[in-house]
Amino acid sequence: MNTGELVELGQQLRVDSVRAAAAAGSGHPTSSMSAADLTAVLFARHFRYDFDRPDHPANDRFVLSKGHASPLMYATYKAAGAIDDEELLTFRENGSRLEGHPTPRRLPWVETATGSLGQGLPVGVGIALAGRRLDHAGYRVWVLCGDSELAEGSVWEAAEQAAYENLDNLTAVVDVNRLGQRGPTRHGHDLDAYARRFQAFGWHTVEVDGHDVDAVDRAYGEALSTRGQPTAILARTLKGKGVAAVQDREGLHGKPLPEAEDAVAELGGPRDLRIRVRPPSSDGERPARLAAEPALPRWDKGEEVATRNAFGEALAALGAARGDVVALDGEVGDSTRAEFFAKQHPERYIECYIAEQQMVAAAVGVASRGWTPYASTFAAFLTRAHDFVRMAAVSGSGINLVGSHAGVAIGQDGPSQMGLEDLAMMRAVHGSTVLYPCDANQTARLVATMAGLDGIRYLRTSRGESEVLYGPDEEFPVGGSKVLRSSGSDRLTLVAAGVTVPEALAAAEALEGEGIAVRVVDLYSVKPVDRETLHAAAEETGCLMTIEDHHPEGGLGDAVAEAFGDGRPVPRLVRLAVRGMPGSASPDEQLRAAGIDAASIAAAGRLLVGEAIVS
Amino acid sequence: MNTGELVELGQQLRVDSVRAAAAAGSGHPTSSMSAADLTAVLFARHFRYDFDRPDHPANDRFVLSKGHASPLMYATYKAAGAIDDEELLTFRENGSRLEGHPTPRRLPWVETATGSLGQGLPVGVGIALAGRRLDHAGYRVWVLCGDSELAEGSVWEAAEQAAYENLDNLTAVVDVNRLGQRGPTRHGHDLDAYARRFQAFGWHTVEVDGHDVDAVDRAYGEALSTRGQPTAILARTLKGKGVAAVQDREGLHGKPLPEAEDAVAELGGPRDLRIRVRPPSSDGERPARLAAEPALPRWDKGEEVATRNAFGEALAALGAARGDVVALDGEVGDSTRAEFFAKQHPERYIECYIAEQQMVAAAVGVASRGWTPYASTFAAFLTRAHDFVRMAAVSGSGINLVGSHAGVAIGQDGPSQMGLEDLAMMRAVHGSTVLYPCDANQTARLVATMAGLDGIRYLRTSRGESEVLYGPDEEFPVGGSKVLRSSGSDRLTLVAAGVTVPEALAAAEALEGEGIAVRVVDLYSVKPVDRETLHAAAEETGCLMTIEDHHPEGGLGDAVAEAFGDGRPVPRLVRLAVRGMPGSASPDEQLRAAGIDAASIAAAGRLLVGEAIVS
Repeated sequence: MNTGELVELGQQLRVDSVRAAAAAGSGHPTSSMSAADLTAVLFARHFRYDFDRPDHPANDRFVLSKGHASPLMYATYKAAGAIDDEELLTFRENGSRLEGHPTPRRLPWVETATGSLGQGLPVGVGIALAGRRLDHAGYRVWVLCGDSELAEGSVWEAAEQAAYENLDNLTAVVDVNRLGQRGPTRHGHDLDAYARRFQAFGWHTVEVDGHDVDAVDRAYGEALSTRGQPTAILARTLKGKGVAAVQDREGLHGKPLPEAEDAVAELGGPRDLRIRVRPPSSDGERPARLAAEPALPRWDKGEEVATRNAFGEALAALGAARGDVVALDGEVGDSTRAEFFAKQHPERYIECYIAEQQMVAAAVGVASRGWTPYASTFAAFLTRAHDFVRMAAVSGSGINLVGSHAGVAIGQDGPSQMGLEDLAMMRAVHGSTVLYPCDANQTARLVATMAGLDGIRYLRTSRGESEVLYGPDEEFPVGGSKVLRSSGSDRLTLVAAGVTVPEALAAAEALEGEGIAVRVVDLYSVKPVDRETLHAAAEETGCLMTIEDHHPEGGLGDAVAEAFGDGRPVPRLVRLAVRGMPGSASPDEQLRAAGIDAASIAAAGRLLVGEAIVS
Repeated sequence: MNTGELVELGQQLRVDSVRAAAAAGSGHPTSSMSAADLTAVLFARHFRYDFDRPDHPANDRFVLSKGHASPLMYATYKAAGAIDDEELLTFRENGSRLEGHPTPRRLPWVETATGSLGQGLPVGVGIALAGRRLDHAGYRVWVLCGDSELAEGSVWEAAEQAAYENLDNLTAVVDVNRLGQRGPTRHGHDLDAYARRFQAFGWHTVEVDGHDVDAVDRAYGEALSTRGQPTAILARTLKGKGVAAVQDREGLHGKPLPEAEDAVAELGGPRDLRIRVRPPSSDGERPARLAAEPALPRWDKGEEVATRNAFGEALAALGAARGDVVALDGEVGDSTRAEFFAKQHPERYIECYIAEQQMVAAAVGVASRGWTPYASTFAAFLTRAHDFVRMAAVSGSGINLVGSHAGVAIGQDGPSQMGLEDLAMMRAVHGSTVLYPCDANQTARLVATMAGLDGIRYLRTSRGESEVLYGPDEEFPVGGSKVLRSSGSDRLTLVAAGVTVPEALAAAEALEGEGIAVRVVDLYSVKPVDRETLHAAAEETGCLMTIEDHHPEGGLGDAVAEAFGDGRPVPRLVRLAVRGMPGSASPDEQLRAAGIDAASIAAAGRLLVGEAIVS
């Protein structure tokens, strides 16, 4: 396409953005119109992609970080022949693939769900990392950002990682239209302000008039020829460009144009230009990856091993057997034990430093390229990445997250380091799996099993050593549990997981000595939960007591209660959990103070078996 | 103190850090030793503080962003005479005020809990904002940061806000010791790399040898005389400085020194130098703030009003009556309706742009100075600040958080914008209050009530209009609920909140027409929950059905289940919640698709009253 055609194409994308939003009665046409020339030139001149084969290993990747500009994305797809006009006008309808914000669950050409700002660039960095360090492929990653979203710290975590990793296969295109949702951004049209920031973080920058298609074309060329560092193209644009009633005006964010037909006419009316998107530059056969059965580590019953150590050893073993496994860590690999993997498989280890949002985003990015990432940090610090985990679920991304140092059992470090709300956070993620092993062999098995699941999979590990309870050949299906003690005369079931399992066993032992038979269930699969075993325990013992090293809300107690959420008769339920705010103390003191140690469990058990209601 | 004495003081702080960690058998002496000269000079020469009156309005404020260097903080307190040597050696003991990471719950001189990295500077910015824009006081804020934590995006959100707000009362002192937990940082001792970043964000910077006490002193002086912008002092230091066995060595993070006695000897042995910390520069009488009864907005029953609008109007009214109320928003004030407050009280409104972590941190900062902040954004985007909310609870901070656009009821915008895990997140926060009103008058009352509570208070609001159900004089105590329908023959209780209340009422109406009497409870207080009303409903109707616009985990269903977590007989429980991944659709279509609309509730009710088990 020549200059004139590119200008026309930009107008067509504006027209179609206006039409789509008008048909929907909602959406963000003005935020689409500012960036229309940017995508027009990109898709017509530089982007390499096979729309018939979105999984082509050599495809470039386009990420719409400003996800609300979805009308522009869909208009561009239409111009590229991937969707037709009829589908374009289903925008935001119930059942349409063209959602308010794009998601790969619905559309095969979307790399990652966006709509929570400041996430597209971080995930784009992950894809570019995969291209450079894992795939060793020549594809490029293009991310279209808004200017407002540069206020998100996650953007600067991404900027830091991209420059540090010399990702010259990555280009961020910033649509500097100066207007956020409720008014002007901090920096307005001051492109230099953004350039200074990106340069300071090690990026090459280009400043350009985002409506001058030749200048935009040259900027993309400059990005393509820049070596050793990523490029940020800072494009001065006007929100609502091309329609006087809305152009560069406040108060029009996220609203269809008031007079859509007039606007279309002002933009020169509908067009039907077609972009012939260039194909990928190579056939890009993906090399086969090793996929053997892992030789997991094995421990003898009775050994004392921390589950975090078991995680590290199992992950290293898994990495030796499976070439698709990648590890990421937030600069605490010596604590999470991800370093065991890093030492054996440095080529598949990504050090993310203390930037948990970027760590999860990078995991989503590499997962989108077919890798199987395990991202680890302290359970407490995964809360930092909550919005990224939430959006990963919207994407339908398959990632493994591992949170170490769970609960008060860590001891002296105190509450800032204790994961006490991680189970609640991870259970509430759509389609997630939540696992909390109590011993080393169980951990190793679950680490291997996680790799094959869909969605967000979370494994919670513990800092301190604990006794190996299971043999190395025991199996631990997701959605299962283990009944560790039971008899025909059980009057109570203790439901524990992780560090509370040995406490529950000790309590049961003590109670048995007093003539009170007690069942003990190891509920290592917190989500999905083993309803059958819990239902049987309810019928046979009448009363369930959950014991968890977690706040009372959203964790094990709630998971067990949910198993009785289908209207069936419910047993009596009691939950022991961490109700206070811990301070510093030894692990044993912490468990005692929280009332989740063996003595507290036994005391509650006695009371419960004797009486109907515990305080 | 002269130069020689400052050098000696630095050594004393190292000695005491080593001794405290040795006594505890854990802790971070090496990270304390790198920064010892920095705090020595600061406290001896520049910091103005009355340790006998930590709430003195004119006190400077010191924030230890690298919270793991707590031994240094406590050693400095000892040198300042605030604690004695005996207490210093209780470090990390059960019950000691000297926790592994400092918290204001325990120690009156601590401004905010740290230990999750990258949070101290953001909160420090909030305190400096309070000083400049709210208190109009001359106090200064000094934040001691680590170099590793500059990888956190939250630091750059803070940097952006501080420069934009011209906070020349803020100084960040970065202890660039080049070593993170598991090895070297990205930038090692490259002070320029950090200086470029801070300068690009609009800060004044000073690079200095962090062990040259005169140079450090001059750097502080330069910060004090810098006008119109915050200052970052980038100090080149050595981790473990002064003890050859650990100095500048990897693998020694977070460990007591192997030979503590030898180390103390190498550092010249114990000393007992005393710092005479300079008093605040003014008496700093805090002006009295208006504290009247708010004239809350009032709506008539039957009006159609969105609860987000009611929030905005109520907050504006509260702001008119109470001079301590401050509002913050993440650049969506036109959506959350925080703009109603902003227009009436611009002097107490802080625009945080799209930086939710910084918004919550700023709220914690202004709350620490005695203000009552309300921070608002979409409920979905509060997940971005989860770790900050968690740490605010560790601090014991009293802040109000308001999440709008909750649930699938927002309609076409799709899942990225839907708060569907916010109740789970907020319930699991220690000491939190979680409120979810269904109408305008209820919202207004709860907005006013929140201000007087302790801890983290969360209010969930809705995008769409709903009918006003309650009169303007109705009262809504926290921990209460409203029984909207009941009779002696109720066979089922519907427990709803927010948008599901009108759906439950319509379902009850339909069921009554079929001869099935149903109770309806508006559970506006999700935490604490009204156990008495739920227990009565259980006894009288035998079966409770919760209906929530939230994922099934961690929300209303779990809250109701928890009310029966004390071993008492449990009713049959059924929960309707959002189990799928929504797409774009109208609000009505969304409620129907999720099975939480009136028709779905009625259908489930029929089944439940007829049979024991649903599905």
